[in-house]
Amino acid sequence: MNFRLVFKLTGKTLLVEAAAMLLPLLVCLLYRENPLPFLITIPLIAAVGLILAHLRSDDHFFPREGFFAVALIWLLVGALGALPFFFWGRLYPELGLFRSYIDCFFESVSGFTTTGASILSAVEPLPKGILFWRSFMHWLGGMGVLILAIALLPSLGARTLHLMKAESPGPVVSKLVPKTSQSSKILYGIYCVMTLIQVLCLRLAGMPLYDSLVNSFATAGTGGFSVRNLSIAAYQSPTVEVIITLFMLLFSVNFALYFLVLCGKVRQVLKSDELRFFLIVVFASIVLISVNIRHMYPTPGEAVRHAAFQVGTIISTTGFASTDFNLWPEFSRVLLVLLMFIGACAGSTGGGIKCSRVLLLLKSILREIRQIVHPRSVNVVRLDGRVMDEDALRSVYVFFAAYMFITLGATLVVAVDNFTFGTTFTAVVACIGNIGPGLELVGPMGNYAAFSPLSKIVLSLCMIVGRLEVLPILVLFSGNAWKRS
Amino acid sequence: MNFRLVFKLTGKTLLVEAAAMLLPLLVCLLYRENPLPFLITIPLIAAVGLILAHLRSDDHFFPREGFFAVALIWLLVGALGALPFFFWGRLYPELGLFRSYIDCFFESVSGFTTTGASILSAVEPLPKGILFWRSFMHWLGGMGVLILAIALLPSLGARTLHLMKAESPGPVVSKLVPKTSQSSKILYGIYCVMTLIQVLCLRLAGMPLYDSLVNSFATAGTGGFSVRNLSIAAYQSPTVEVIITLFMLLFSVNFALYFLVLCGKVRQVLKSDELRFFLIVVFASIVLISVNIRHMYPTPGEAVRHAAFQVGTIISTTGFASTDFNLWPEFSRVLLVLLMFIGACAGSTGGGIKCSRVLLLLKSILREIRQIVHPRSVNVVRLDGRVMDEDALRSVYVFFAAYMFITLGATLVVAVDNFTFGTTFTAVVACIGNIGPGLELVGPMGNYAAFSPLSKIVLSLCMIVGRLEVLPILVLFSGNAWKRS
Repeated sequence: MNFRLVFKLTGKTLLVEAAAMLLPLLVCLLYRENPLPFLITIPLIAAVGLILAHLRSDDHFFPREGFFAVALIWLLVGALGALPFFFWGRLYPELGLFRSYIDCFFESVSGFTTTGASILSAVEPLPKGILFWRSFMHWLGGMGVLILAIALLPSLGARTLHLMKAESPGPVVSKLVPKTSQSSKILYGIYCVMTLIQVLCLRLAGMPLYDSLVNSFATAGTGGFSVRNLSIAAYQSPTVEVIITLFMLLFSVNFALYFLVLCGKVRQVLKSDELRFFLIVVFASIVLISVNIRHMYPTPGEAVRHAAFQVGTIISTTGFASTDFNLWPEFSRVLLVLLMFIGACAGSTGGGIKCSRVLLLLKSILREIRQIVHPRSVNVVRLDGRVMDEDALRSVYVFFAAYMFITLGATLVVAVDNFTFGTTFTAVVACIGNIGPGLELVGPMGNYAAFSPLSKIVLSLCMIVGRLEVLPILVLFSGNAWKRS
Repeated sequence: MNFRLVFKLTGKTLLVEAAAMLLPLLVCLLYRENPLPFLITIPLIAAVGLILAHLRSDDHFFPREGFFAVALIWLLVGALGALPFFFWGRLYPELGLFRSYIDCFFESVSGFTTTGASILSAVEPLPKGILFWRSFMHWLGGMGVLILAIALLPSLGARTLHLMKAESPGPVVSKLVPKTSQSSKILYGIYCVMTLIQVLCLRLAGMPLYDSLVNSFATAGTGGFSVRNLSIAAYQSPTVEVIITLFMLLFSVNFALYFLVLCGKVRQVLKSDELRFFLIVVFASIVLISVNIRHMYPTPGEAVRHAAFQVGTIISTTGFASTDFNLWPEFSRVLLVLLMFIGACAGSTGGGIKCSRVLLLLKSILREIRQIVHPRSVNVVRLDGRVMDEDALRSVYVFFAAYMFITLGATLVVAVDNFTFGTTFTAVVACIGNIGPGLELVGPMGNYAAFSPLSKIVLSLCMIVGRLEVLPILVLFSGNAWKRS
């Protein structure tokens, strides 16, 4: 393992994090809030970053370095991003928020991994600068702190494909253009423009500028942190709900498809198996839930709007709330839990297992049945018309097994806290899938404050495991990877 | 599809079922109970069996016929085995037990699939003959009504390997001796002798003969139906609990290993990866639960005894109870739910995913990590020292995906009944894993009576899906298989 190079990359990313923190500092100053939490943190992160970034190293860069670096970077960025929360908590202890560092770490990891699970019982007492940082983390995490680093620091050059492979969500890494740094710039451009359009739409719907910005950050990153205690329900505006529903769904589609649209290849987009599967699941879920909750709302339109918002928020793994779905009938609640497992499309900012993987697993089951019925026929699994490579399929199978094993294993550890099975299990599912809210105690109007420090650490690791698609974190914990090369 | 042959096989199995019902009829007569339920059912099943068994057919027998036949046979045997319950319910409506045919079907499928989930709120009002049939179904189901048919009706000869492949639990079918019918006779011999030894042990521990017999049937088949309302706890005998714990564990070990012991190949047995994995999981679970429940029992010994009994009853997928584990702390409850997923060893009478599959999945995850760390190395997955074939591994992966998808899908349907997430989810897990009790409403002192007819049918199908290891039932529902060849 080329540790020096890994540290060097980590250092560069920390410099980006320090720079990104200047924006919430600016917000602090604009609203005349106490800037101390950021004034202490920024030099600290910058110093660590500078030291690590100036390490001398050779260029030996293999997949294991990529996986290792990604895992380490997310852990460190999360750990240091928690500091403004921690210092603010020390400055205003009378409010009783951000009391322990573990809580701050949980909140920060939840931010960067775009999970949106919170240990805060109320967010409205917090200053605008801190809340801005909390939502901005979603936006940074959305496309990957690392892709940001790649886009801004092209000096890393060709080596970065290993990094993208480790970080990009989904089973297949598709380079849009031959150079990785250019690919990520294009993706990042689409991301910025779409965020900007959402901000404009929300402004036009009458939302204040600050709220439009932070809510757009949380939507774009499919995060779900909100600046109101009642989340999106606080705005009491059907227009806002519809806009956010649409953008949540837009941000959970593979970004490569937007690139194809820009190139005029719309027909190719419409042929995407994953997009079709995603749309069918979304549509079917909205219909089923609308029927199931019809009696709870005054008009059918309102039932459909809330169903669509909640389906969008869960399958995109955002985790906003327009209503408390924890009060819905069990059928709708379980359907939302299933959507938590499925998650968004590959190559989007969303989490979960990803639609393409679920589709490939379903197709593999059908293949197995065909093989039994017609043992002598040659059977392949196709995606978008192309035959899937057996190695790629195997990694989908193994990913799924690891995802389920980690989910069940983490449920066991969190169970030590002795909450109900529904709370324990859905907390883990909501964290590993980067959604945020689960059911019962961790429902959309609940929070994660009641968990023990051990559970909070395990749930934070689940978020990183989910965000990095399982394997990089396992590499980090494998003894083999630690041997010096 | 060669339907005539499938029906012929079904007919022969029904004749075996009719013959097997003579034993509970005898019990009825011995205890001077009303024999009418059996006197109506036996000729009925025999008639259907005779008609089907005398169909003329050619010998074209391919895997799809095997899978199809197995699925159809289990459905029909379950449906007709329910009739004695149904007729008894009509004869004694004042007791309010076995009120609808759906309930009887659920109880019968639960019996044959060795699940042990019950819709009865109390079993003690039932006559001894009916209870004998209920437990005897476990014993018949245990090694497979079909292997019974193979052993007794050797006329089917070489064709039966396809049947065994469809029915035998576990990823690898190992023929003990070249002829299938002889293999099944050997397995069946071991099964009978072990059952007999358990009956003797329970008699020596002071249990009445009738109770010893029915409890041994339920242990041997890893079923779990009991003849007392409080299950095994009713006997208030630590000796009985220890005996049953041991036999539950013995019946969840691959029977091929007992054959090896008989051949004197003890060293080969000790080298079995699956056996080691099974023993480690059992031991670790007993230790963890003992510590977790220590404060609930007067002595450490009692805590360990109850922990061991419950670990044994769940991992063997039997489902007896020596205490109400639903009252245990959440950690122990979740650990038991994880054991429900793992299940027994392949080639045993137990259900669940099976230890060997879980082990292969874990090894595959490790291989994927090794591959990342050392991309150029050649990596294989080994079991018992032998390299696993990639096709066999693929079917393990696909099995796991199908198992989890069906579990989550069935949870959604059962959720219509609007019970808590814990009840709904663990009911499905306990049924597809052929365990019986789950958590909360379906805990060891609860039952499945409160579910709607739709849920009872879905849960019954889950039991068959679990017992037949998923694929045969999917073949039954696949359009392709229905085409006439």
